[in-house]
Amino acid sequence: MAMSGLRTTRMIWSRGLKAPSCHLQCRPMSAMASVQQTQHRETFEPEGPRVVTDIPGPRSKQMLQDLDQIQNVGMVKFFCDYEASRGNYLVDVDGNVMLDLFTQISSLPLGKSEVDLFHVTYVNYVNGYNHPAMMDVLKNPVNWSTFVNRPALGMYPPGDWAQRLRSTLLAVAPAGHQQVITMGCGSCSVENGLKAMFMKFMRVRRGGAPYTQEEMDSSLRNQLPGSPNLSVLSFSNALHGRTMGCLALTHSKWQMKVDFPALDWPIADFPNLRYPLDEFKEENRKEEERCLAMVEDLILKGDQNGMAVAGIVVESIQAEGGDQFASANFFQGLRDITNKKGIGLLMDEVQTGCGVTGKFWAHEHFNLTDSPDVVTFSKKMLTGGFYNKDSFRPQESNRIFNTWVGDPSKVILLEAVVKEMTRSNLIGQVNVTGEHLLSELKNMQARYPSILHKARGLGTFCSVDFCDTETRDNTVNKLRQRGMNTGVCGTTTLRFRPALTFLPRHVDIFMGHFDAVLADVTK
Amino acid sequence: MAMSGLRTTRMIWSRGLKAPSCHLQCRPMSAMASVQQTQHRETFEPEGPRVVTDIPGPRSKQMLQDLDQIQNVGMVKFFCDYEASRGNYLVDVDGNVMLDLFTQISSLPLGKSEVDLFHVTYVNYVNGYNHPAMMDVLKNPVNWSTFVNRPALGMYPPGDWAQRLRSTLLAVAPAGHQQVITMGCGSCSVENGLKAMFMKFMRVRRGGAPYTQEEMDSSLRNQLPGSPNLSVLSFSNALHGRTMGCLALTHSKWQMKVDFPALDWPIADFPNLRYPLDEFKEENRKEEERCLAMVEDLILKGDQNGMAVAGIVVESIQAEGGDQFASANFFQGLRDITNKKGIGLLMDEVQTGCGVTGKFWAHEHFNLTDSPDVVTFSKKMLTGGFYNKDSFRPQESNRIFNTWVGDPSKVILLEAVVKEMTRSNLIGQVNVTGEHLLSELKNMQARYPSILHKARGLGTFCSVDFCDTETRDNTVNKLRQRGMNTGVCGTTTLRFRPALTFLPRHVDIFMGHFDAVLADVTK
Repeated sequence: MAMSGLRTTRMIWSRGLKAPSCHLQCRPMSAMASVQQTQHRETFEPEGPRVVTDIPGPRSKQMLQDLDQIQNVGMVKFFCDYEASRGNYLVDVDGNVMLDLFTQISSLPLGKSEVDLFHVTYVNYVNGYNHPAMMDVLKNPVNWSTFVNRPALGMYPPGDWAQRLRSTLLAVAPAGHQQVITMGCGSCSVENGLKAMFMKFMRVRRGGAPYTQEEMDSSLRNQLPGSPNLSVLSFSNALHGRTMGCLALTHSKWQMKVDFPALDWPIADFPNLRYPLDEFKEENRKEEERCLAMVEDLILKGDQNGMAVAGIVVESIQAEGGDQFASANFFQGLRDITNKKGIGLLMDEVQTGCGVTGKFWAHEHFNLTDSPDVVTFSKKMLTGGFYNKDSFRPQESNRIFNTWVGDPSKVILLEAVVKEMTRSNLIGQVNVTGEHLLSELKNMQARYPSILHKARGLGTFCSVDFCDTETRDNTVNKLRQRGMNTGVCGTTTLRFRPALTFLPRHVDIFMGHFDAVLADVTK
Repeated sequence: MAMSGLRTTRMIWSRGLKAPSCHLQCRPMSAMASVQQTQHRETFEPEGPRVVTDIPGPRSKQMLQDLDQIQNVGMVKFFCDYEASRGNYLVDVDGNVMLDLFTQISSLPLGKSEVDLFHVTYVNYVNGYNHPAMMDVLKNPVNWSTFVNRPALGMYPPGDWAQRLRSTLLAVAPAGHQQVITMGCGSCSVENGLKAMFMKFMRVRRGGAPYTQEEMDSSLRNQLPGSPNLSVLSFSNALHGRTMGCLALTHSKWQMKVDFPALDWPIADFPNLRYPLDEFKEENRKEEERCLAMVEDLILKGDQNGMAVAGIVVESIQAEGGDQFASANFFQGLRDITNKKGIGLLMDEVQTGCGVTGKFWAHEHFNLTDSPDVVTFSKKMLTGGFYNKDSFRPQESNRIFNTWVGDPSKVILLEAVVKEMTRSNLIGQVNVTGEHLLSELKNMQARYPSILHKARGLGTFCSVDFCDTETRDNTVNKLRQRGMNTGVCGTTTLRFRPALTFLPRHVDIFMGHFDAVLADVTK
């Protein structure tokens, strides 16, 4: 039987591992062939990484040249074979098998074994085996119309929409939240979360009076009073997205910002804590108090200069800005200030949500006396969107709206993720794996004190800082050549963003390679 | 054989039409049942609308109350049964079958028969019948990993990405365009298209010199010189999206705008043409010249007051603003002005692209001497994104970027759409149907001159204006009660946005009901 198109996959799986049935993807097959192949199909992932070329390899480099004809490819690391990828392992087009600690910029919730469906499906066709998670979604023809008939959700929702929201987003809603709106991506989530804060602020300001004709008319011309002078306060080093409202709140990389006009909105310092935290408690407390005082001062200045601050936007953990953690006290301080001033608090959980910190939402670590007013999500949640308190709900129709308002096909996939998280206690797993990961990072830091510092983390949302950018980038590249795909943030930080299915044994595999690379770097 | 869950569908299809095999969606079935059911499965759509309740009906009303617990539902018209919907007919949860002339705010390209897959699939399982269009995408397990392993396209694209772009977006690219970037939605497409214009403008302004450290640093604080005082010129009544950059360009409805701070960017009048066009040629020519002069004046003022206009954003046809058409001369004028001033021209084709006007892109009707610099798309294209001329390509990495940068699962669906458009000559069909639609609209206008005027259109992108808002809305509601689902725009416009598979016989069905409703309204 000819099996063209299998070159890569056969090369990878030729060391005694059971071969995935990738030929099924390449050609229709007879019932007989189906039965023959079924013997070899089980869910599994590789025992470890396997590197057969430089990374990027020759095929990736060729594809890079090709894609460069169509768009700027400066951020592309390598090209992937998603059909061949398994579990926590990402396979590139050159047949390299990499342990994936970055998972599509932290946007893949379950790793690839849970979502790599075709071989299980074919087993199911023949043997009736029924995989419990996302596979069912794609296998079941009843779902297919959701994937191909994308509705305008805000006008013509499907009959099961409320139920879908309840079994997914509302089932995992932060305390104090019963309202949710879906969006397409993180940026749109934050943009519309801002609107919820502006509306609430202005509703209070006008004392519940209806809009005047002047407000309605002037808003269409971007003029006062309909387009008020309001701002949103953000923090240094933050990243909230790359549309213009989000970019006004984003201060992490000049490449995202330079040449683009920006709203002159107030920016407070985000606390810059010293590590180890327990050695610098007093210093760090003062640093956070300094930042909170700056927030209060900027709000006061906004009132004085006629551009009131309508809300504060903050990441539960600053991710792209360098994995900066602040304490529960700091966030409680923000909650107290916003409540005192009667303005909104939006917690951006796009990167920190969906269980990665060991709680479903990172802000749940802060034990806030009053939950945030708006909580945005995307990435591992597969759908963007935001929760808002009842008081931040749009009062009129057509205020928070667009053509699609999200995508039900992402929500039915999220439903499988949420079920799998419960069934397999994946948040419990994140806590176990995360504890091991952080402990091992601290060991490495003790072993290479001239290179590493500030090992930190919550759940598997861990990171460690390097002595300088060059050493970090050099390390990341050497790790990649060993089949360890990692991510970076800030200027000197290595960040870990594995899937929820990442296990202590994966940590150990990584640490073996990390140790070898650091030994090499310090040589 | 029990067939629970089929109430709605059986009710709908009980008048001699062949029943779709909806029970297949509800329960696993034996091979025997599969063969038995196969007799009844063919692609088809209803012969006409069928209304069995008020619209919204009791089930929709109940669901509305339910969803209202979770979010503002002020824009929801009724709830839909997408599994039961067929071809050009949308079925609601109360079993009403409606001819759909609005197609999810114009975002469904092929109608539902082409994309309603499950019954065809089951035929295929048994009989080997192979549907040529989107069904193959969902049926083929090789595609499933694309739906469940959404990649971070800008960093880890799949190996076939360049080829996919060539077989879809580049295969239908506007003349002069070989560069394309995907995005998640229309708003993100326009937001990033603006950035392409800002970058080009500033690159020319600094004469190709590299960014200074001061520019990089100040951009992170939203300050000059890194965050320059630049604007984008837009037109009255425009709609380009609902994120902050897009909203600055949007001037069609106060609900989208009021209470939100807005950039004070210049807004020129969009031509307000008198109909019938051939009776008011000279008047309309002057009106367009007036608007073009206003554009030039605003650009000059921008130069003078230190906020240069970096580009112009315009819809090929103003849709939400009331289906306002301008002439080829007007758009050629904009192209001449932007070229003369060395600024960008972005044509927003989010609603007008994908063949609906009888050409793939509406701006192809204008025979511009030089193609637009940026062309944005979304809706019927299933993926958002934009084309840009080579000179508008980002020069550095990480300038146009976000986590997902689009979604390959939408692009593989688009591939099926593009193939089907070619195979079935759907743009040819749009021209035939559109000619009939416009001709019939003009007949109705002649028949009801006190109510209708300004019948206009390109392809099936047609519309007619009413004497007042109340009469229009009353008509739309009466049409809905007869199973005609239509859309509105502006303040008095009825707009037609059917699928590409809309046929002259569907026009005739609609006109029968339209006539009856108008006769009733004028009684």
